[in-house]
Amino acid sequence: MNILLDAMGGDYAPQEAIKGVKSFLSEDATTTISLVGSEELCMPLLKEHEIDLNRVSFIPSTQVIEMHEHPTKALKEKQNSSIAIGFQHLKEGNADAFISAGNTGAMLVGTAFSIKAIEGVLRPTIGSPAPKLNGGLGLLLDVGLNADCKPELLDQFAVLGSLYSQEVLGIANPRVGLVNIGEEEGKGNLLAQATYPLLKNNSLIHFIGNVEGRDLLLDKADIYVCEGFVGNVILKTLESVYTVSLKRKIKDEYFDRFNFEYYGGTPILGVSKPVIIGHGISSALAFKNMIHQAKKMLDTDLCGKMKQKFSQLK
Amino acid sequence: MNILLDAMGGDYAPQEAIKGVKSFLSEDATTTISLVGSEELCMPLLKEHEIDLNRVSFIPSTQVIEMHEHPTKALKEKQNSSIAIGFQHLKEGNADAFISAGNTGAMLVGTAFSIKAIEGVLRPTIGSPAPKLNGGLGLLLDVGLNADCKPELLDQFAVLGSLYSQEVLGIANPRVGLVNIGEEEGKGNLLAQATYPLLKNNSLIHFIGNVEGRDLLLDKADIYVCEGFVGNVILKTLESVYTVSLKRKIKDEYFDRFNFEYYGGTPILGVSKPVIIGHGISSALAFKNMIHQAKKMLDTDLCGKMKQKFSQLK
Repeated sequence: MNILLDAMGGDYAPQEAIKGVKSFLSEDATTTISLVGSEELCMPLLKEHEIDLNRVSFIPSTQVIEMHEHPTKALKEKQNSSIAIGFQHLKEGNADAFISAGNTGAMLVGTAFSIKAIEGVLRPTIGSPAPKLNGGLGLLLDVGLNADCKPELLDQFAVLGSLYSQEVLGIANPRVGLVNIGEEEGKGNLLAQATYPLLKNNSLIHFIGNVEGRDLLLDKADIYVCEGFVGNVILKTLESVYTVSLKRKIKDEYFDRFNFEYYGGTPILGVSKPVIIGHGISSALAFKNMIHQAKKMLDTDLCGKMKQKFSQLK
Repeated sequence: MNILLDAMGGDYAPQEAIKGVKSFLSEDATTTISLVGSEELCMPLLKEHEIDLNRVSFIPSTQVIEMHEHPTKALKEKQNSSIAIGFQHLKEGNADAFISAGNTGAMLVGTAFSIKAIEGVLRPTIGSPAPKLNGGLGLLLDVGLNADCKPELLDQFAVLGSLYSQEVLGIANPRVGLVNIGEEEGKGNLLAQATYPLLKNNSLIHFIGNVEGRDLLLDKADIYVCEGFVGNVILKTLESVYTVSLKRKIKDEYFDRFNFEYYGGTPILGVSKPVIIGHGISSALAFKNMIHQAKKMLDTDLCGKMKQKFSQLK
């Protein structure tokens, strides 16, 4: 297993990425990691943090795709950037998973061009954890990759999300809820009305019906399915609630769980290898957890199981 | 000015409605109120709470539309219900405004059948206050009346919301933000992309561009425009955050402002007379504030100003 981490991604690169690696290595005895980044910037940090170079291999890159750059253009023009090199390694099989807290668009475009969507998957999706009041962890998806969706997409997201929830979050028989504005079947916008029967008849998932905004923090479902526009607005609203709770100096164990660094990053689901996108403000904690997350996705062969599931749909 | 209140609406009817009236009368020296409800249930309460019957007139009703009933069917079959009688009075000009915390669907259907949409208004809308961290009050709309929207509707909601914000919330030149999943023009789903240029070219509003989920609690805009599906999910998510903060016994002045009772109820905007829908769990505080809200809408001639504004659009 070789997990590749972009040391140059995120607002605090490469310092926090390298501290995250250090922290991961202290918790895991066997996994080897590759780092891609500026030799000049990273080498002194690897030394300073006494990283065991028997367990971390280093791939030099000479360019960085900045946060504001146009993804497609930047990937094309900066072939020596850490993200471009990362995807090259993923494509050629030199890496099994790729993690970066860099330019989100470049990560999405890079994924699309380097590794394939799983056969049968119409569109890959991205999900975000939704901490439940009772201690559990829900999964909200899509959270922005697919702004406009057709019912068939939401139906597939439910399958992808259920597998992630089972394998990575360890929930045995995850309940799928359709994000809606009413409880009964037939409620909602045209998309929700058309999606409901698909989910109801989908034998690969455990559909429990509609869920509303008020159910997102409760234990009503494990997977909350919606189109990317809605999911992104919900996610950013909840992130903002957490920011506000910090500003208001509220100390509360539950609100603390809205610190998304605890969960690592955002996995792209429905593609053939694990790719995880970190938040720009990722600190060492987030990097450490993203490596754990990628490891879990590899250990459980999540992508293989997704392939198998979608081959049944043919 | 005659504000009509349904005493039978809400989970704690008629007790809380009548306590709300009492509370309103103690704060306002001149306004007269009409109450519609069960004589048997209300009269003893009016006596018990020593309501000044010179300022409150009573209209007896013998039926109640329950929360679970089908709106159109119930309104047709229960012509002696408090809601049906309320709309009859509104229609005939015996009341200037109508308030109820009863069956939301019946309130919407009753409005549609008894009073007209303002000429030029394609669809009335409902908005909800969004408390800002800095103490101000934003307005989110639509929050569920129009699940699926066309760009022209969002454009009109911006005008209706701006007038409400100016007249009732007292914000001089309210800034309109389009709820979206990115900051730049051109971002978002198809609806947001098509709505942006309409808002940008709308001379009746002060459009400031896209706003994201993370901006909703901040002072980025005063009006947050979105389609009803999105607005409803956001609203219920925020209501849930408040519920959770209560469960977690968090005492915080800002989170306390998520108690929607402080703002009264949800006004239907774009119709010719003020109609306010209360939350089912409305207590005396909410009823009192709904009466204040209706009074403010009448005092400022909000509906007249909406008529005037939309006549300019012809």
